[in-house]
Amino acid sequence: MSDTGDFALYGYFRSSAAFRVRIALNLKSIKSEPHFIHLRKDQQLSEAYKAINPQALVPALVHDGKAIGQSLAIIEYLDELHPDPPLLPREAGGRARVRQIALSIACDIHPLNNLRVLRYLRHALGADDQARNDWQYHWIVTGFVALEAFLKNSGDTGRFCHGDSPTLADICLIPQMANARRIQMDLAEYTTLLRIEEAAYQMPAFVQARPENQPDAEKA
Amino acid sequence: MSDTGDFALYGYFRSSAAFRVRIALNLKSIKSEPHFIHLRKDQQLSEAYKAINPQALVPALVHDGKAIGQSLAIIEYLDELHPDPPLLPREAGGRARVRQIALSIACDIHPLNNLRVLRYLRHALGADDQARNDWQYHWIVTGFVALEAFLKNSGDTGRFCHGDSPTLADICLIPQMANARRIQMDLAEYTTLLRIEEAAYQMPAFVQARPENQPDAEKA
Repeated sequence: MSDTGDFALYGYFRSSAAFRVRIALNLKSIKSEPHFIHLRKDQQLSEAYKAINPQALVPALVHDGKAIGQSLAIIEYLDELHPDPPLLPREAGGRARVRQIALSIACDIHPLNNLRVLRYLRHALGADDQARNDWQYHWIVTGFVALEAFLKNSGDTGRFCHGDSPTLADICLIPQMANARRIQMDLAEYTTLLRIEEAAYQMPAFVQARPENQPDAEKA
Repeated sequence: MSDTGDFALYGYFRSSAAFRVRIALNLKSIKSEPHFIHLRKDQQLSEAYKAINPQALVPALVHDGKAIGQSLAIIEYLDELHPDPPLLPREAGGRARVRQIALSIACDIHPLNNLRVLRYLRHALGADDQARNDWQYHWIVTGFVALEAFLKNSGDTGRFCHGDSPTLADICLIPQMANARRIQMDLAEYTTLLRIEEAAYQMPAFVQARPENQPDAEKA
């Protein structure tokens, strides 16, 4: 257990928002007690879990009895509590740039491709497998084209999205790339993203956080 | 102009993400030069605007020649630059709670009901007016039911979402409620949200930021 108290993480191996928090915990060497919420079995809808996170989404972090939802709120909290290594730069301009990248994924790509949205597309709008795949591609491509241009043309991009060490931006990017790979997207044109992904997976913090390396992982 | 340099805000009267930034600028008494990007005329897709924000979304804030996209990144930046009045509490736990509320709207309600998503639903999935209205209702109701329960059951809720002064949470909530009203949603059951909305609109910073009070506003 960490010297700042007890942490418990409620997650699901395939949730890319939970993947983000796992990376942050690993980068900061914070130990947490894992709780597995099986989304396809709708365990997030139980009253017990909604008492922890009324949004009925994963992840949630419980620290010394207090629950926090929303992966980016959790990661900023961890960064304030355990500033080393920092997940945001020191200067306001750099912090804004990292948050902009993170939010461009966390707001404008990921929520559109969430399990609950794909289910709604199928049940309420009758979207078949092909239409739902096209939907997922569309929002990832839209986001990645913009992000690739942004990173490639910026002098602030280094080995990672911002400089040479991982930040909140990479913590959002890598799980989103894993989602893209899961639906067999061709990522060849995103050369900067691919380079950053390669750098990230040289770090155990990213590798150990991967969905397939979680105790609750299932075969695809 | 502010003593911390020149600010320019690229927005659109009806964008609720731009509405958020307008509230923050008003609360902090920061003057900015307005630039109007007409979303229904696709001005966000121009090369000139994409040089400012490669995501082709509003808002973007330009400060001393540097552009920032993503409303929450902009507001955190303004809060770091101009800490008074603060838009986040001081303690890490309170900051996490405020960010959790803000992100539950900014990630899990708003992006699903964006103009570009509604357009995709119509063009690619053939969703008619009713289906698109149902879609918007569904995601706002899902988010508001959880948020109402969260705020009602929390001792940290005050006159506003967190305590008795406005924070980033209210800055996200009020524009989302305006969107709900625009599609004639019945909000009667969200008594806590309504009470907070009433408190917010007693402040000129919120009133002056409303879509209908912008120079580029059109009649519905």
